[in-house]
Amino acid sequence: MRIALLGGTGDIGAGLALRFGRDTDHELLVGSRDPEKARASADEYRAELDDRGVDAPIKGFENAMAADRADVAVLAVPAYHLVDTVEAIADRLDSDTVLVTPAVGMKRDESGFHYTRPRAGSVAALAAEAKPDAVPLVGAFHNLPAGGLADLDRAFEWDTLVFGDDDAKSTVIDLAAEIEGLRPLDVGGLDNAAEVESVTPLLINVALENDGLHDLGVQFR
Amino acid sequence: MRIALLGGTGDIGAGLALRFGRDTDHELLVGSRDPEKARASADEYRAELDDRGVDAPIKGFENAMAADRADVAVLAVPAYHLVDTVEAIADRLDSDTVLVTPAVGMKRDESGFHYTRPRAGSVAALAAEAKPDAVPLVGAFHNLPAGGLADLDRAFEWDTLVFGDDDAKSTVIDLAAEIEGLRPLDVGGLDNAAEVESVTPLLINVALENDGLHDLGVQFR
Repeated sequence: MRIALLGGTGDIGAGLALRFGRDTDHELLVGSRDPEKARASADEYRAELDDRGVDAPIKGFENAMAADRADVAVLAVPAYHLVDTVEAIADRLDSDTVLVTPAVGMKRDESGFHYTRPRAGSVAALAAEAKPDAVPLVGAFHNLPAGGLADLDRAFEWDTLVFGDDDAKSTVIDLAAEIEGLRPLDVGGLDNAAEVESVTPLLINVALENDGLHDLGVQFR
Repeated sequence: MRIALLGGTGDIGAGLALRFGRDTDHELLVGSRDPEKARASADEYRAELDDRGVDAPIKGFENAMAADRADVAVLAVPAYHLVDTVEAIADRLDSDTVLVTPAVGMKRDESGFHYTRPRAGSVAALAAEAKPDAVPLVGAFHNLPAGGLADLDRAFEWDTLVFGDDDAKSTVIDLAAEIEGLRPLDVGGLDNAAEVESVTPLLINVALENDGLHDLGVQFR
């Protein structure tokens, strides 16, 4: 399978690239608005995996090029770039490409981080509005700490909550399960997105307030 | 310490009464609007603990009577009774009584359970508005499955997120830590309540969508 990590030069993109690169045989397409940056990040991830004896197929492309070639395209961009990014790649998407949103909107004030729920109901709903109708959209990989994900020496047992209204949800569940230590849990449809997205600021608040806890994920048990 | 469980005849009240009764020596005051119901539930919890060889000090009272005698008063009532309950006990509270809210507002639609965030910002904020100014308010015990909590044969390792703007927060953290398998985590001030409250519908959605998972709690790791 070809997995595009759009905005894959950022921290969550790096984590997903390194984990997919190490734990799967999928072809990884790191995307960026700037193809030079995308190639530099792809080289960096490949070198890190090579140091660990893994020869991973990772290449860099401009976002639309990466999306065009992908079976699954992960929108690993900040929430405020989500709609831009979907619009920029929209004509490269079709019903065979699964769009995945891990994006969460947050703001920080003096008491901590807070979920900023868009008027559309969730960040995922913004992506749903911006994408072509025929393209399936799935939410996944929201509540994973980028630092812990990108640190291949860190073993974890984290859950990722997967939602969506299309059959494509099962593709993403299967894909997520290939990452060692990651357990995908189905959490229903797109209408259940806001509760998933709002766990991320909570994880950060817990890490901020408790010594010794950082780069936290979550497990349902 | 004297712990009042207001609305303690309900499912989360039952779970807390049984766990505190088994794992601590605190005096437990089960509260209800109807003192007869409170006494009946107290008898039931005492009998169940007695069957397990635990002689627990649990008595039933009308809510205001229970609050009057308590060091810590847990508002174990549905969110739509929270303000009523606080108003009904307000003149029995003083700065020596710590009020604790585990309440979460939810609604269900065809896709699942959803957090209904009150205009005040959170359910906890509604309690804060309704209580006398001098009375400290702490949030805790939100994301615990009532069924699992009340089933004393079930061992667990769950986290409970504790928030508040007063020193009383540490009292509640210490108290929660006395329940076997429960780890209290500080999550900052009252302004961080909404993200905590919204985990409860998420837990229910995960349980609804995944065979074999039910009565779920959460662990940050």
